Amino acid sequence: MKIFFQNRLIDARRARLSLFDHGFLYGDGIYETLRAYGGRLFRWRDHEARLRRSAKAAGLSCPWTGRFLRSAAENVVRANRAPEATVRICVTRGQGPLGLDPSSCPVPTLAVLMHPHRNFAAERARGVEAAIIRETRQRPHPWIKSASALPLVLAKAESRRRGSFEGGLVNPQGMVTEGTVSNIFFVRRGRLHTPDVRCGLLAGITRAHVIALARTLGIRVTEGRYRPNALRAADEVFLTNTSWEIIPVVALNEYGKRRQIAAGEPGPLTKRLQRAFFPRRFNLADDG
Amino acid sequence: MKIFFQNRLIDARRARLSLFDHGFLYGDGIYETLRAYGGRLFRWRDHEARLRRSAKAAGLSCPWTGRFLRSAAENVVRANRAPEATVRICVTRGQGPLGLDPSSCPVPTLAVLMHPHRNFAAERARGVEAAIIRETRQRPHPWIKSASALPLVLAKAESRRRGSFEGGLVNPQGMVTEGTVSNIFFVRRGRLHTPDVRCGLLAGITRAHVIALARTLGIRVTEGRYRPNALRAADEVFLTNTSWEIIPVVALNEYGKRRQIAAGEPGPLTKRLQRAFFPRRFNLADDG
Repeated sequence: MKIFFQNRLIDARRARLSLFDHGFLYGDGIYETLRAYGGRLFRWRDHEARLRRSAKAAGLSCPWTGRFLRSAAENVVRANRAPEATVRICVTRGQGPLGLDPSSCPVPTLAVLMHPHRNFAAERARGVEAAIIRETRQRPHPWIKSASALPLVLAKAESRRRGSFEGGLVNPQGMVTEGTVSNIFFVRRGRLHTPDVRCGLLAGITRAHVIALARTLGIRVTEGRYRPNALRAADEVFLTNTSWEIIPVVALNEYGKRRQIAAGEPGPLTKRLQRAFFPRRFNLADDG
Repeated sequence: MKIFFQNRLIDARRARLSLFDHGFLYGDGIYETLRAYGGRLFRWRDHEARLRRSAKAAGLSCPWTGRFLRSAAENVVRANRAPEATVRICVTRGQGPLGLDPSSCPVPTLAVLMHPHRNFAAERARGVEAAIIRETRQRPHPWIKSASALPLVLAKAESRRRGSFEGGLVNPQGMVTEGTVSNIFFVRRGRLHTPDVRCGLLAGITRAHVIALARTLGIRVTEGRYRPNALRAADEVFLTNTSWEIIPVVALNEYGKRRQIAAGEPGPLTKRLQRAFFPRRFNLADDG
């Protein structure tokens, strides 16, 4: 596996990440996950913009041009001959002495990793179960795609323990926010709903893509505040993220109790959005 | 610098931490910071117990015996000929594919790092300023000493921006909790107070040491819920952690406004506790 690290493409096994990198010591870093389709990065500009927003919110320096970052990511995909890939761009505070103080790290670390894309065709066709997970405490910066992800790791572990594919998080105010690595949508009487970013969630690139896509198809979309009973009563529920695109949720797992959503199979609007995910006007080249 | 990594002592520059270590990718790890005095680890048993509590709370495997971990830490101190050292034991989820799922990482990573102890004699003698920092959201797992520390990194950066030595955190309910890397105590009418762990804080080893120490000296200690005005009105305020021991706070910085505490100098009870920090009955050998 070739990765981009220390300003060049190298074999992952030869990479020497310092144990004093504050990304490792304190989760002091941010990242983006992108999809390459046929070797081309999907929605590059949106991912680059969010990377910079995360960096700014975390007070992280991100001195590379968009062209440089994009080329690093494309070169990793090319070097691994993996045109269908999931790419991760990591930016951390860099190396410094022990201690939280970010000013002790003069040079940020940039790494671009990847893995061959795992095909989620079965999940997209059949749908999955999502576990409802109540958070007793609000995550401090859900809008930063940060490497300090332990709360999400623990929620993902909990959803796996319950046998669910993903965990759907409910904040301490009782509002649905997002999945551990996805955004949540539901359909009720022909209208598409998704939690408002003000509920405390990461505004997914695929989330924005699906909202725009739905609107071009004449589907009304509302961003609002929803309790889990809105999911229970929905006609359709689905998850979105860069790797999954659109995966239907056909059942909820509420503390071990399985609750089917509507007929327990992917719904018509979900399937319509799946089919339209790459319409001509969303040409892959359009975001370059 | 020699460190313990991959089951042996190696030069830090030769260590090859994988970029696929989930400690790096997702802050999916825990740690302990210890002091070596004259080559001996202070309060080893307490640190080992807390390491295991953090690991359990994070669902992390920690398969090493206490004897093994202690010997790794002592060997690092010895190999660097740094009897006065700050030692960090890191345990992470280990290497795995991209994705939060902790079950994808079969082998946890253990690393023991150190740096020569920085002397805080000046701060201990003169006292420091602490910035009051209000958190709009509660950190999810303050009781886990985790590598997902971005919220604390940002609070530390904020306190440095204001020119303060440390940041004193106030939770969304308005209660004082802890410093970014320390615990907070104050004295009022001869009685010692410190926020109760139920306010949401990491129970410091030095915090417990100081509470026990105060009680042996006949000082009454209360763990309670306190608003920042309790600090403003205090006769004395101080911070504790493994590296600092006891550092007096002589001023608060509240959004740029500096407010002196009492006479603006280290108080008598603080100095008494500093002098008594290593009484005979707390022999360094007692925790081994």
